[in-house]
Amino acid sequence: MPPKRPAPKKKSAASASGGASHPQNNIGFLPPGASHPLSRKQQHHDPHQDDHGGHHQQDAFENRFELHFPVPARLRHVPNSLVEAVNDFHFAMMNDHPRNAFYYHLLKQHIVPGETGVLEIGAGSGLLSMMAARLGAKWVVAVEGSYEMAQLAKRNVKQNQLEGTVTVLHMLSTDLQKRDLPGTPDVLVSEIFGTLLLGESALDYIVDVRQRGIIDPHKTAILPQRGVQYAVPVHSDTLSQITTVQSWRDLNLSQVTRLQDSCSVVFTKQYGFRLSSMPYTCLATAPVELLRVDFSTSRPQDYKKQFPVRVTAREDGTAQAWMLYWVAEHDVLPPAAAAAETLEEAAKDRALIVDEARHVYYMSTKPEDTRDNFPRDMQWGQALQLIDCTQYKQGKNKAEEGVQMPSYLPMEKGATYEFNCSLSQDRVVMHLQYKKKVEEDDGKKAQKAAAATTTAEAAVEEKEAKE
Amino acid sequence: MPPKRPAPKKKSAASASGGASHPQNNIGFLPPGASHPLSRKQQHHDPHQDDHGGHHQQDAFENRFELHFPVPARLRHVPNSLVEAVNDFHFAMMNDHPRNAFYYHLLKQHIVPGETGVLEIGAGSGLLSMMAARLGAKWVVAVEGSYEMAQLAKRNVKQNQLEGTVTVLHMLSTDLQKRDLPGTPDVLVSEIFGTLLLGESALDYIVDVRQRGIIDPHKTAILPQRGVQYAVPVHSDTLSQITTVQSWRDLNLSQVTRLQDSCSVVFTKQYGFRLSSMPYTCLATAPVELLRVDFSTSRPQDYKKQFPVRVTAREDGTAQAWMLYWVAEHDVLPPAAAAAETLEEAAKDRALIVDEARHVYYMSTKPEDTRDNFPRDMQWGQALQLIDCTQYKQGKNKAEEGVQMPSYLPMEKGATYEFNCSLSQDRVVMHLQYKKKVEEDDGKKAQKAAAATTTAEAAVEEKEAKE
Repeated sequence: MPPKRPAPKKKSAASASGGASHPQNNIGFLPPGASHPLSRKQQHHDPHQDDHGGHHQQDAFENRFELHFPVPARLRHVPNSLVEAVNDFHFAMMNDHPRNAFYYHLLKQHIVPGETGVLEIGAGSGLLSMMAARLGAKWVVAVEGSYEMAQLAKRNVKQNQLEGTVTVLHMLSTDLQKRDLPGTPDVLVSEIFGTLLLGESALDYIVDVRQRGIIDPHKTAILPQRGVQYAVPVHSDTLSQITTVQSWRDLNLSQVTRLQDSCSVVFTKQYGFRLSSMPYTCLATAPVELLRVDFSTSRPQDYKKQFPVRVTAREDGTAQAWMLYWVAEHDVLPPAAAAAETLEEAAKDRALIVDEARHVYYMSTKPEDTRDNFPRDMQWGQALQLIDCTQYKQGKNKAEEGVQMPSYLPMEKGATYEFNCSLSQDRVVMHLQYKKKVEEDDGKKAQKAAAATTTAEAAVEEKEAKE
Repeated sequence: MPPKRPAPKKKSAASASGGASHPQNNIGFLPPGASHPLSRKQQHHDPHQDDHGGHHQQDAFENRFELHFPVPARLRHVPNSLVEAVNDFHFAMMNDHPRNAFYYHLLKQHIVPGETGVLEIGAGSGLLSMMAARLGAKWVVAVEGSYEMAQLAKRNVKQNQLEGTVTVLHMLSTDLQKRDLPGTPDVLVSEIFGTLLLGESALDYIVDVRQRGIIDPHKTAILPQRGVQYAVPVHSDTLSQITTVQSWRDLNLSQVTRLQDSCSVVFTKQYGFRLSSMPYTCLATAPVELLRVDFSTSRPQDYKKQFPVRVTAREDGTAQAWMLYWVAEHDVLPPAAAAAETLEEAAKDRALIVDEARHVYYMSTKPEDTRDNFPRDMQWGQALQLIDCTQYKQGKNKAEEGVQMPSYLPMEKGATYEFNCSLSQDRVVMHLQYKKKVEEDDGKKAQKAAAATTTAEAAVEEKEAKE
């Protein structure tokens, strides 16, 4: 009987080996509970039918327990995968009120009561679709890849008497056809972000409906508009306690540190702590932009597999790790259109920032935005990747190479350091490898070429400029 | 490529379906990386040989990453399972200094330099065995079930030049034979505790070597002597944010709460937070003892599969969950024997408590003992099981039954509540089900029968008394 709950499923990156990936378009993330048999591609699938119910019994929640353990009737026959997903992150997600408010204000801004058609992809239990219906949308189609989750969404819609407006379709959005919708959507809304911005392949799923004409780039507003994946080097002696071991009394334990994993991006939720319960210091003068995504215009091919990034230290300190977080934004329509009380409400809901006199609806996994938002930490949190600045030398043999030890990066105030960012083929995950401390001459050269080399955004812009 | 790290492996309970269990003696927990092919039982296995190396390549760490991701030489060919285990909890475990001190003082008390033979089971990277060697043990045998971990232990022993004293055997302790040891051990030491006291089948592994005469109950000191698994009901509005959802604005979301998992015991490390970062209140006048284990005398059959427990509220409040933690203890030999400076040192190391003028070496997962001990939270933390006090009625049909909602338990100051504790067959996990509020008359009856019904310990004692 496993009391063990696996690491967050929705919020984890897909694995080439273990996790599910989408057979189409090289999309890395397939939602939990979703399947994509080839038959579904060959023969158009009727998503209005309640199919895929056949696996209920074999996966029943009660089967996880010995017979003398009590399991209430409400859970007994429910698929285990649904119970796990809901308890792992759905309660947290639905209780993240600033998140809900962010989407509410976005929908409110774009819905004209009685006129607007809304498509949601990755609808989960249907909260955003129901918001759209309450805001007066003419029609709402909620697409959800997991059979069990779609059933739950239908129950929620019924409970709120919104069946007249909201249609829940059990399918992957990549299987959605124009004929499944009453018309071209005026609004496409989705919340398919992971602990990493593209950890659930948000861009790929949106590009898919863009390219197949399910939405009309000139007509359909995509909510939210854009997102940025940031990284910042951090110093934390506390983190060292679970990532390194040197000695205890007179016993040398350093052999164990050779096994330090400086390759994987690990979520705070996987480590098992909230960042607020681990003291740390940010060492950068400014966060590094790894990815800048405009969901209306960015294309997967805009992102390079490898690109250099530079970071300048704002104080002396040892950098143990890169800490990764993201920000999603959506412009507030010109002040004339947005009533003052709406903006006030959004600000109170912690879903608005005023950025250089520009009003922007805003949602992020910045540590300061999750510190007082327990549900957001439990849905997303942040990610960490350890920094190893050892310059590994080619050894004479495997044994000699294996003996070299990892080391954290000592940073000096004002100095600039170069890393190489590798992006996985499916953009679901990345890795930052230390290259060198930038010498002053390098620095001047770098400044000249700054637009071309410091951020992925720059790389994208440069590429677009050439086209 | 999976940046995802699965939930703690060593520290999770075994699963009847997914996780590994021991084919012998109904032992629930098999250590990660350990295998138990039947051939090993049929033909005695030579644990001094470096076998089982054949699977290295297929599980190599570098295979987790795309080719353009850099993986340092020190990790490239190392088995992924070893990297995962070390990064998941070994660094944390070895940096839990009060834990190390607890074992150091236990070993120091029982080792006579040049005379004492020590057996460690579940040696991991060998720290406790090396401590024993440094303290002057005549010989130390460290038994470790995982091939890769045993290799790491051997490297540590070599690094500290203790090969003359410490022998690392790659095998399960259940395969250990008398002929594998230089003699009968004077000391058996082990740290095979999980987030739950018996989550790694500590009692079963110790009973196995007790019963097969590998150790001599009259001669061998078992370190530590005993442990207690406690549970206490807690109130936490913060916890409710990730275990229940009611509504957002005017949308009713309560359907989702029907899927609340009030059956599983979930570790804080699996939820992804430290208890210190989630405000809560303990509601009981005293913690409930679920299991009391004396590693020298307790037997698996002493524990009932089901038994009642009672808890009295020390204040009004809604109990959302049972919080589970354990305490391990070992008596300090009479003060005359233990030098004052040793006790002072142990106290400074947070490995000693003075309990009613009795000195006891002490290690626990009480929240107050992990709050300022980040590594202990990252190795163990605590466990939570949600409380559902709905009295489910037999419905006319499945649909009617499924519709009933869970509810937390409102507790009144001074009132007593009865729960039924179910223990899994392998004692790895338990469940507490609400039965009733104890009426005053019940209370008086209960007081009379208190010794027989309030704790598992009582149940055990009663049973033993009858025998």
